[in-house]
Amino acid sequence: MDAVDTPTFVIPLWADLTAVALGGVQGALFASGFQGQRRLDLLGVAIIGILLGMGGGLIRDLLLGLTPATLQSNWYLMTATLASIVGMLLSGIFQRLNRAIVMLDAVVIGLFGAFGTSKALALGMPAVPAVFVGVLAAAGGSVLRDVLMGLPVAIMHVGSLYAVAAGGGCAVLATAAAFGVPLPIAAVIGVVVTTVIRVLAVLFDLSLPEQRKLYRRKVAVETTGIPVIRLDDAE
Amino acid sequence: MDAVDTPTFVIPLWADLTAVALGGVQGALFASGFQGQRRLDLLGVAIIGILLGMGGGLIRDLLLGLTPATLQSNWYLMTATLASIVGMLLSGIFQRLNRAIVMLDAVVIGLFGAFGTSKALALGMPAVPAVFVGVLAAAGGSVLRDVLMGLPVAIMHVGSLYAVAAGGGCAVLATAAAFGVPLPIAAVIGVVVTTVIRVLAVLFDLSLPEQRKLYRRKVAVETTGIPVIRLDDAE
Amino acid sequence: MDAVDTPTFVIPLWADLTAVALGGVQGALFASGFQGQRRLDLLGVAIIGILLGMGGGLIRDLLLGLTPATLQSNWYLMTATLASIVGMLLSGIFQRLNRAIVMLDAVVIGLFGAFGTSKALALGMPAVPAVFVGVLAAAGGSVLRDVLMGLPVAIMHVGSLYAVAAGGGCAVLATAAAFGVPLPIAAVIGVVVTTVIRVLAVLFDLSLPEQRKLYRRKVAVETTGIPVIRLDDAE
Repeated sequence: MDAVDTPTFVIPLWADLTAVALGGVQGALFASGFQGQRRLDLLGVAIIGILLGMGGGLIRDLLLGLTPATLQSNWYLMTATLASIVGMLLSGIFQRLNRAIVMLDAVVIGLFGAFGTSKALALGMPAVPAVFVGVLAAAGGSVLRDVLMGLPVAIMHVGSLYAVAAGGGCAVLATAAAFGVPLPIAAVIGVVVTTVIRVLAVLFDLSLPEQRKLYRRKVAVETTGIPVIRLDDAE
Repeated sequence: MDAVDTPTFVIPLWADLTAVALGGVQGALFASGFQGQRRLDLLGVAIIGILLGMGGGLIRDLLLGLTPATLQSNWYLMTATLASIVGMLLSGIFQRLNRAIVMLDAVVIGLFGAFGTSKALALGMPAVPAVFVGVLAAAGGSVLRDVLMGLPVAIMHVGSLYAVAAGGGCAVLATAAAFGVPLPIAAVIGVVVTTVIRVLAVLFDLSLPEQRKLYRRKVAVETTGIPVIRLDDAE
Repeated sequence: MDAVDTPTFVIPLWADLTAVALGGVQGALFASGFQGQRRLDLLGVAIIGILLGMGGGLIRDLLLGLTPATLQSNWYLMTATLASIVGMLLSGIFQRLNRAIVMLDAVVIGLFGAFGTSKALALGMPAVPAVFVGVLAAAGGSVLRDVLMGLPVAIMHVGSLYAVAAGGGCAVLATAAAFGVPLPIAAVIGVVVTTVIRVLAVLFDLSLPEQRKLYRRKVAVETTGIPVIRLDDAE
């Protein structure tokens, strides 16, 4: 892409580093909550912090075919590491401020989603994959965390509006951009939408209808008395 | 690579979208079979469908150093999402047509493998890594699925000829191409070979010799009475 | 980057293939140690061998935005496959030479780390992310192995100085390079440092202070009698 043709949209370094720092704190808080058999050593907690601070940006840039921006300067890793140390030291305090963690988490998803989608749009990617890149950037860090920690992957299971919140914010961002709203303003709107959906989902304990319920309704209509084989029914 | 030098091989959009759609249906069928504790919500089933429809192409393009083709147009994600919804709605019917699922799975592996290897060859990659890219494109979606769902990774365990089927088809494709067969024809041959190996493997319940058997034979020859330490022997 | 500006540092093919071969042997030794329920078939053992032989280089090049060097020639895959077969056949002998495996493992981490950091520095990446790329190249293969085999990820858990050894060697390498030591010499120093740290860690059973201990000390200072909620305390 020629420099003349490229839209001059660049995520400001301070905004990018803010997202990295919040992600790092949030990751370290999460990781330091594990005790007993699954407890992590200091390095493990720092790895999770770095992963949540930088994972979203790494995934975004790999999908966009770019050399990861987070590896082009010393600041990103230093910020993520420092943030995860702060998160570790403050974990005793923060864990009693559950509301603060939920809020922090919602803002982090919003920021990574908005940066992902707006960077993709600025590179000329169509709207649907641009929203997809935003969702992967928002949720990717937590997927990597769950896989590395051997936990069930949060966004895959009943009760999570995590990816929906990210998708909603990114879709609003892309729609606003399509109607001519400048990307920085569209990005702010996207962050707000994602954060609000996520916080409301936690407050009101919302979740998607279980696939199972739909399935059972369908089965009742379609079957002719032959029981359907279930792969893994613990009930 | 200069446009003049580049072979004019391009995977036709209809063929690519067909593979994406079949992968999406297959992924959703698989995911909607899970009930009980491991049940997924609607979003989870859609994620698995999108993953199996688009994962192979994403992995292929990342390994080839290209911006993922599946993210350059709105069609891929729309096709994968629609296909996973269709897969979900039809799961009640399809789960009694086990043969259809096995066939569908075999064709999907064949298509992703053939597209991966032929795209790599068209970019000038040597034959051995081109076959490797095909196998990763064919099997990658299912690896991602198993990791995200917390299942044992299918291709790693005894009894799976999954990767062998993909490797066989891709190797035949690369060999045919080396003998001057045009890539589109070689690709069709590759798809047929993979599909046939995979279907035969399921029909006749074939599997690779267990590593264990070879190991025990060796141990019997080499040991001098000292029992070999086994890390995890449930027997 | 212009060819004239690029430093003429290239990892020699023989050195790269040596690392791939050692990684392949080491991966196959590890994988063939699993018996009972987790036993792998021949293909599974070969996949782990290829993964440990080539995974580090793949991750490095993806992070550097390059087409993976390991896929530009037939030699890498042939070397990794051959090495994993050798590892499989010799596993009976090697498993009684535990010291040899630990040494082999330490050298492999050192080589992948040093290649990762020096390639990143040669491309003009700043020192901190260059060390990060080295650590991911050194540890990435084992992370992929653990995830694919459904094992707890080694570098995340208490008692592992794996990533610390890689980080130490890569940091010494980057520091030496910053002081004007030519990259090939700096790389050799880095390999030695990583290997020595890793071997000493195993010999003297060193580990990082548990996050838990620090946490408890903090809790004792900060709490006001309210017990802190623990997510997963098996004690």
